[in-house]
Amino acid sequence: MAEKLIGACIIGQSGGPTSVINASAYGAISAALASEEITQVLGADHGITGVLADKLYDMGLEDPAELALLQSTPSSELGSCRYKLADPDVDDTDYQTILETFKKHNVRYFFYNGGNDSMDTCDKISRFMARSGWECRVMGIPKTIDNDLVGTDHCPGFASAAKYIATSCMEVSCDSRVYPTGQVTVMEIMGRHAGWLAASAAIGTYFGAGPDLIYLPELDFDMDKFLADVERVYNAKGNCLVAVSEGVHFADGTFVSEAKASATDGFGHAQLGGLASRLCEAVKQRLDVKTRPIELSLLQRCGAHLASRTDVEEAVLAGRVAVESAIAGETGKMVAFERTNVGGDYLCRTKLIPLTSVANAEKKVPLEWIAPEGNFVTEDFLHYVLPLIQGEPERPTVRSLPRYAKLKKIRA
Amino acid sequence: MAEKLIGACIIGQSGGPTSVINASAYGAISAALASEEITQVLGADHGITGVLADKLYDMGLEDPAELALLQSTPSSELGSCRYKLADPDVDDTDYQTILETFKKHNVRYFFYNGGNDSMDTCDKISRFMARSGWECRVMGIPKTIDNDLVGTDHCPGFASAAKYIATSCMEVSCDSRVYPTGQVTVMEIMGRHAGWLAASAAIGTYFGAGPDLIYLPELDFDMDKFLADVERVYNAKGNCLVAVSEGVHFADGTFVSEAKASATDGFGHAQLGGLASRLCEAVKQRLDVKTRPIELSLLQRCGAHLASRTDVEEAVLAGRVAVESAIAGETGKMVAFERTNVGGDYLCRTKLIPLTSVANAEKKVPLEWIAPEGNFVTEDFLHYVLPLIQGEPERPTVRSLPRYAKLKKIRA
Repeated sequence: MAEKLIGACIIGQSGGPTSVINASAYGAISAALASEEITQVLGADHGITGVLADKLYDMGLEDPAELALLQSTPSSELGSCRYKLADPDVDDTDYQTILETFKKHNVRYFFYNGGNDSMDTCDKISRFMARSGWECRVMGIPKTIDNDLVGTDHCPGFASAAKYIATSCMEVSCDSRVYPTGQVTVMEIMGRHAGWLAASAAIGTYFGAGPDLIYLPELDFDMDKFLADVERVYNAKGNCLVAVSEGVHFADGTFVSEAKASATDGFGHAQLGGLASRLCEAVKQRLDVKTRPIELSLLQRCGAHLASRTDVEEAVLAGRVAVESAIAGETGKMVAFERTNVGGDYLCRTKLIPLTSVANAEKKVPLEWIAPEGNFVTEDFLHYVLPLIQGEPERPTVRSLPRYAKLKKIRA
Repeated sequence: MAEKLIGACIIGQSGGPTSVINASAYGAISAALASEEITQVLGADHGITGVLADKLYDMGLEDPAELALLQSTPSSELGSCRYKLADPDVDDTDYQTILETFKKHNVRYFFYNGGNDSMDTCDKISRFMARSGWECRVMGIPKTIDNDLVGTDHCPGFASAAKYIATSCMEVSCDSRVYPTGQVTVMEIMGRHAGWLAASAAIGTYFGAGPDLIYLPELDFDMDKFLADVERVYNAKGNCLVAVSEGVHFADGTFVSEAKASATDGFGHAQLGGLASRLCEAVKQRLDVKTRPIELSLLQRCGAHLASRTDVEEAVLAGRVAVESAIAGETGKMVAFERTNVGGDYLCRTKLIPLTSVANAEKKVPLEWIAPEGNFVTEDFLHYVLPLIQGEPERPTVRSLPRYAKLKKIRA
């Protein structure tokens, strides 16, 4: 057992929001408020930028019922940021400012909730504090709808987005085949480098209504192959629903969404908005059919009304374990999940992994989970994702509309 | 009491699907199956085109449990169409074909579920049958997310779309203000000529998270005024969320979504996709801020997982009342809703109105419900819409995903 470390803690949210990042904040805040070692629980305004600006809120002054509502409030209630810290060996200005804030409030615990960039921030602060001699335990709490953090079976935030995507694709699948004249519908799904979210569209297909074709950024995108796939499905079914990761790219690495229009890439003179529009334009030029581009955009990462109860509970758990582990003496680690199947039942356990192993790395969809034709995912992916999306969370409402947490945010 | 009329009935779905059009089909089918007068219940494949092609399904052969699932199945399960019948005085070919199908199956009742174009179809068939001497009672069942049918307080389908839109806008409102750097987000909502759906985005604002500005097609759109509005909100709040009807148009009638790019309309050289993208481009050129266009597209009309229980129940009611009224001797009418407030409680009653009064007319948002500045809606609108979106419907699931009706569709 490590020596007792008495002092304040800071909790910060970073990177793109999710439906459950506030649930992790709740897990961390409530565990910290309940602990004897932590004297004050501070929420950082807009992540590390709030620490730099000494803009911190005293979570102990919040109404506990409002804090509990964080479990069903989407987005980052404390505010987020995408601030990249410099290499401390080159420029340690920011770190000195952070140290000042830590000293001012006697901060001995720092919890940072985010994806791989945020774990990099967390790792740098951890190492700087160790060198500077200011005793402070630093823990990362995983978060990303992209599900691309290494060392963990899955990430809080992914499952709720996956459930939103699967359900929306099922609904659109029903809608897009109502007319006698067919339609090619292309749904653009988040995921710049990893295809976990677009792959999740397949869940609906396995349950009777979903996309016919799915394209992930794990493989190079081939426009001719894509158009041939669409044509084959359309001719057979009179309709075609496609799910595609925003990050699909040609063999030369160019994102399909950013490729210059030319006669050879299928876009012709199209100067349309997003990827879905571009692919629809290419389909229309080649096949002369009705098309409909749909971009799930921000909706998929804040669709808390369709959150997975499993995801919400695991997000709370990750926040709580980060605090409890730090109190027990851990530092420089991220909370990760490992999955066990006990008698066929899904069970999720936490473990701790070094922040250095997570920072700036990416976990992609295993190639063996992608169908040999490169246009769908296998049942192995379904077995992986299905336990994660289970259960409906508590969803407090007022007049049938969601009731979100309202924090007072009183400056410390 | 009218004379008993014994024979088969046809039920058809027409126009754009909704989250609850299948609930109306269920109301009509179950009432028809339970009646003594109706000898066979036929579902038309793709609306009137299925009648023309004699492609009819025997609903009596379906599993009752699957029929009941229609209440939570989005989209048009029997298939829809947008087929416009000719003026029978000019060309009665289609009508003669319909009459043949009616005679072949001894069809004495025809129920058609759709919007104002569909009520026109319904009306024409009703009058043709009367003239031809084939006794047949024809009833319209209202349906449209656009809520633009005249003679009825509201339309089945509208409230569920409104609830989806309000909830999604609340979620996006949370998401779009997480970063210290602000953002202008433009949400494009369905409604070509009537702004009921975009107006519904305001519900979230009244409940603490929603758009700052709303633009409806009931008023002419002024780009300079729009940009000034956005600038004012953005400067005051550091963020701005806009909801806009797809049908907003300039004073000369040109849709903003289709206006040619020019230096004067704010689009510059933009050749982007939809309205939201165009408005974002205009904002970016004038204000130099980060923007995000979001088009709710098909999602808003098939989002059955967020349906209003009130809407589902009223949709079932409309279908049932159409059948019961026809059996009682009515014909050439549409089922409509009237609202009464008993002791402050919302109560919805049905009435019958002539099809001729509904066909090809449009009900718009009253101008007095639009804020004087033309960029929001008043509390009167809130009082109108709020009772309609109440309650969560039954939503059968399998492994946390929706379980939709699976009809056998056996040809009659």
